[in-house]
Amino acid sequence: MGTTEAWKKMREVCVLGVGIHKFGRWPDKDLGDLGREAILMALDDAGCSPKDIQAGFGGRVQVPNTAALRLVSEVFQTGIVIDNVEKACATSSTAVRLATWAIGAGLYDVCICVGAEKMERGLLGAVPPGQEARASYAQLMGLGIMPGEYALRARRHMHQYGSTREMFAQVAVKSHRNGALNPYAQYQTPVTLEEVLNARMIADPLTLYQCSPSTDGATAAILCAREVAHKYKGKPITIAGWASGTPAYEPVGVGGDVQEGFIPRLAKEAYERAGVGPKDIKVAQVHDAFSAGEIFAYEDLGFCEPGEGGRFVWEGKSEINGQTPVNTDGGLESRGHPMGATGIAMLIEIVRQLRGEAGPRQVPGNPKVGLQHNVGVGGCNIFIYKK
Amino acid sequence: MGTTEAWKKMREVCVLGVGIHKFGRWPDKDLGDLGREAILMALDDAGCSPKDIQAGFGGRVQVPNTAALRLVSEVFQTGIVIDNVEKACATSSTAVRLATWAIGAGLYDVCICVGAEKMERGLLGAVPPGQEARASYAQLMGLGIMPGEYALRARRHMHQYGSTREMFAQVAVKSHRNGALNPYAQYQTPVTLEEVLNARMIADPLTLYQCSPSTDGATAAILCAREVAHKYKGKPITIAGWASGTPAYEPVGVGGDVQEGFIPRLAKEAYERAGVGPKDIKVAQVHDAFSAGEIFAYEDLGFCEPGEGGRFVWEGKSEINGQTPVNTDGGLESRGHPMGATGIAMLIEIVRQLRGEAGPRQVPGNPKVGLQHNVGVGGCNIFIYKK
Repeated sequence: MGTTEAWKKMREVCVLGVGIHKFGRWPDKDLGDLGREAILMALDDAGCSPKDIQAGFGGRVQVPNTAALRLVSEVFQTGIVIDNVEKACATSSTAVRLATWAIGAGLYDVCICVGAEKMERGLLGAVPPGQEARASYAQLMGLGIMPGEYALRARRHMHQYGSTREMFAQVAVKSHRNGALNPYAQYQTPVTLEEVLNARMIADPLTLYQCSPSTDGATAAILCAREVAHKYKGKPITIAGWASGTPAYEPVGVGGDVQEGFIPRLAKEAYERAGVGPKDIKVAQVHDAFSAGEIFAYEDLGFCEPGEGGRFVWEGKSEINGQTPVNTDGGLESRGHPMGATGIAMLIEIVRQLRGEAGPRQVPGNPKVGLQHNVGVGGCNIFIYKK
Repeated sequence: MGTTEAWKKMREVCVLGVGIHKFGRWPDKDLGDLGREAILMALDDAGCSPKDIQAGFGGRVQVPNTAALRLVSEVFQTGIVIDNVEKACATSSTAVRLATWAIGAGLYDVCICVGAEKMERGLLGAVPPGQEARASYAQLMGLGIMPGEYALRARRHMHQYGSTREMFAQVAVKSHRNGALNPYAQYQTPVTLEEVLNARMIADPLTLYQCSPSTDGATAAILCAREVAHKYKGKPITIAGWASGTPAYEPVGVGGDVQEGFIPRLAKEAYERAGVGPKDIKVAQVHDAFSAGEIFAYEDLGFCEPGEGGRFVWEGKSEINGQTPVNTDGGLESRGHPMGATGIAMLIEIVRQLRGEAGPRQVPGNPKVGLQHNVGVGGCNIFIYKK
């Protein structure tokens, strides 16, 4: 029996409630302060009490990684199983996937997922001063850290497909315009194309506004079996499909296209499991850790043809009122990217959009299907949600 | 539908192959060197090739926690989903549980689980020099770190039940005698009761030999659906039952018994799911991070009555040829305790015992049912295996 066949035989799983602590800089709060607010908001949104929750999944990226245990048990202490997971920037979407499996398999009816992070300032993954002798040659050349990797792929995209630096910058313009409409976003100020292009260069062609910031924040989601959702006041949104995987081996030096080959494969699996296609997606949250990543995602997820991603954003097709609205909450760049919390933040925005509760940034036309694309070092989780 | 009922409807899951890198101090090896050896041994034992593996689960406790991703993708690079989990000393048994769920639910037929750790010297969790201002009052009094916590409970056990320091020490005598029969153990030298009692005092009544050491090591296990096991040469051992949970809230100052109240509850669940009782257990690996913990485990798991644990070991009932052989591979104290690898090390010993492959430490009488009890900070995983 294949994974897709098994998935289709599982119980229907839905998101019953969501909660978030405003993303930003919270020097006077600890992880518990952030997580507690998100968890209590999710319980209230779902209409659940702690005793209804049968299992917890979650995590943070930085140490100690036992965030789920600390956050959930602090609020509940009901004796439930609580698992900590970690998949870099795809940490809390991994928690959601594990909860989805457990509920779908019938082991639990109601689970909570949490993600939280407090981040230091500065470039993540850079070689610390004094540690040069332990760095790889790639790191010393500025690779092996994220801005360099995305910038190289962006340059290749420009060379191969004729996309322009203005197109990459336009992603940040859109993100910050959307983020200004999101009261939970870290940055709520629109920026112009000129401001983005003239900002400090981080890794050519990516300027400051095209890079996700360091952020503190927390998110929570309560999932349940669709068949028990009627017991609670939360408005259920179904998890219709998912896919997860890692890049397959590619021999060094072979080069090739700028697409991350494994994501189209996962997207195909997720669409198949959900019984929809790219044209059905009416709202999407994709992993724009850097603006170029959003353009690659358009192509990887089939919103446009390979090479057309730059023009896709330039022509407004990913705007809130466009063909496929993307990162309507400001995305990683404007909403912020507290690594362990980001996966559930994406889920939250899709839930709000499908419920019609997104206020000034609501996608028009009563969207019924949303997609989430959350990439962490070495892996990716895709989810498709249905109203 | 309850968890137990759902579990009984799942597909039967078994352990198909196991692998281990000898535990000890490996200053010249990195995590990859350790993990690779364990993974390749497990593949060979199972008779699988990397392309047969459909998902991976695992982790380490220390940063970076993405051990599963690094270890599995380094060996395989086949594009499979790989999840990193962390539950302190119960990390790799959590990986096994998640793989069990995924296979039981039909999502995957064959999964790999890995655990690995390289540990620093010294007392884990102690307040680092210069960090006293950030420590809790409990930490400054020697609590909040493991030897202190176990020692307090041991003293309470002595007071309440009349157990003696010799009984606690006897656990270490048994462990080291068994470890001397295990070529993968960190310490393979027997110790006498007098040596244990006269060793350096760590936290009264626990002396050095009664405390698990810091260890480097790695372990791997390949799990599969029972219905596909015939395709491979590995000798399958069934995962008959499991339970997992966290301590429920107890108001501060209420005191009470020395047993960790939540573990008897989990044991009851595991026995129910496996359809066996404590008397059926013919080999057990329990969490003897400190000798007192093994005595508590005898009682928590129903091998003896509450308060009888000290006499249980003193009378030889947990010896290899005793009523319920416990920690036949040397346990955490003698085999070693590389935190992230320990959960699967316990599984490996039970698999070897149930297969009849444990050599000089083989439990006599063809044991058919084994139990694993793996405790991490804030949680516990119990598994019951059947031949």
